[in-house]
Amino acid sequence: MTRRRGDELGGAVVPGRRAVAELLRAGRRPVRSVSLARSAGRVADELAELAAAAGARVRWRDADQLREESGVEATQGVVARAAPVTPTPLAGLLDREDAFLVALDGVTDPRNLGAVLRTALAAGASGAILPRYRAALLTPAAVKAAAGAVEHLPVALVGGVATALDQAARAGVWTVGLDARGEALVSDLAVADRPLVLVLGAEDTGLARLVRARCDVVARVPMPGPVESLNVAAAAAVACFEVARQRAG
Amino acid sequence: MTRRRGDELGGAVVPGRRAVAELLRAGRRPVRSVSLARSAGRVADELAELAAAAGARVRWRDADQLREESGVEATQGVVARAAPVTPTPLAGLLDREDAFLVALDGVTDPRNLGAVLRTALAAGASGAILPRYRAALLTPAAVKAAAGAVEHLPVALVGGVATALDQAARAGVWTVGLDARGEALVSDLAVADRPLVLVLGAEDTGLARLVRARCDVVARVPMPGPVESLNVAAAAAVACFEVARQRAG
Repeated sequence: MTRRRGDELGGAVVPGRRAVAELLRAGRRPVRSVSLARSAGRVADELAELAAAAGARVRWRDADQLREESGVEATQGVVARAAPVTPTPLAGLLDREDAFLVALDGVTDPRNLGAVLRTALAAGASGAILPRYRAALLTPAAVKAAAGAVEHLPVALVGGVATALDQAARAGVWTVGLDARGEALVSDLAVADRPLVLVLGAEDTGLARLVRARCDVVARVPMPGPVESLNVAAAAAVACFEVARQRAG
Repeated sequence: MTRRRGDELGGAVVPGRRAVAELLRAGRRPVRSVSLARSAGRVADELAELAAAAGARVRWRDADQLREESGVEATQGVVARAAPVTPTPLAGLLDREDAFLVALDGVTDPRNLGAVLRTALAAGASGAILPRYRAALLTPAAVKAAAGAVEHLPVALVGGVATALDQAARAGVWTVGLDARGEALVSDLAVADRPLVLVLGAEDTGLARLVRARCDVVARVPMPGPVESLNVAAAAAVACFEVARQRAG
């Protein structure tokens, strides 16, 4: 792992078939090389063609080398190297009239981070907000789980989520925290139609007190079953698609 | 990894704090031992107490030993050993008037399997259907991701999902396949109130042709954003909570 500066999101190492295919198709950032395992078969041939068309160097490797190169266990025989993902200024994300942002406060598992970005983009989110420190950023595992979403979903990197929520409030953007003990229901959000930020807490501890206190609404996913809490990626999926459903309805 | 017979679900190795706490609290199966790392701090002390109350042997280990013992990278300093999870006969699951089952056809990533079980239980599902072969069963990684759901959600082990769906149809249970190209919307399922099985396909290839052909309804999660498909755990979360919402409404 290379050291990361405070203004960097990461994202330079891209493992996984969907992630690499989308990196090459989207063409939003320069791609240095695409390493492929022969064992990936027809998919590898297709990606080699896409890579050549994008002007990226194609290298044939064995699966173990790809694992080592990326630090990811299951690379699906594909790892690309590209320019890092460039963060987007928060003000630009807050400015949109239909803003639908997802803020992750202290999510530390890169697979959860990647899954949330993929789901949020699918649900029509217009951006994500990540804290600069003490949280997962775009590590190879996160980029793989995002399956190409990092090529399309603008991400703002902030000093702290609480301060970003203050900035959202000043910009007229509603802030909705997600918490198992929230008083509102995600299936009946009065502000679903408004510009909003969905705020997700850490895997174990949920929303930090200071962040929760800044949310205009704290909402929960109603759970009929005997489970204390949802995994953060599952909670994000339900909440994001509830916003999408209510916006469409 | 020990070898598994065709009638076994697995589940004997239980890593992770939530999974072990729920194993001990639920008391549904004998617990042989609970291995704890001192580094897990107060949580380890609480689990040691629960373990002693359950009559399980407590062993103090270092974090590396726990990783090795479980084959799971992040054990959170806790690994229990218990009797395997006993499968439930499919007929019993189909018999309930409010049956809400989730069938996983060819999900191979244990973390996805575990996440789906946890989410399904939270959404009020009454059981899960897993194929005996060529799919993830209750490996340590799956049990950890399920975070205790395997103690409560009955699981039927079947020879093939297609045959299980035939049996469901004969029992008057509706079968709803989930597919990005489905004609119905999960947010508007005419059969949400009926006894039903939600059928999820493999991570890469989706629903198998023979399984899809047997579904009464094939439904999709409507996706406003530029994403081809959702991760199977995210799709399951949205669909399960849509069933829950429509049943409650």
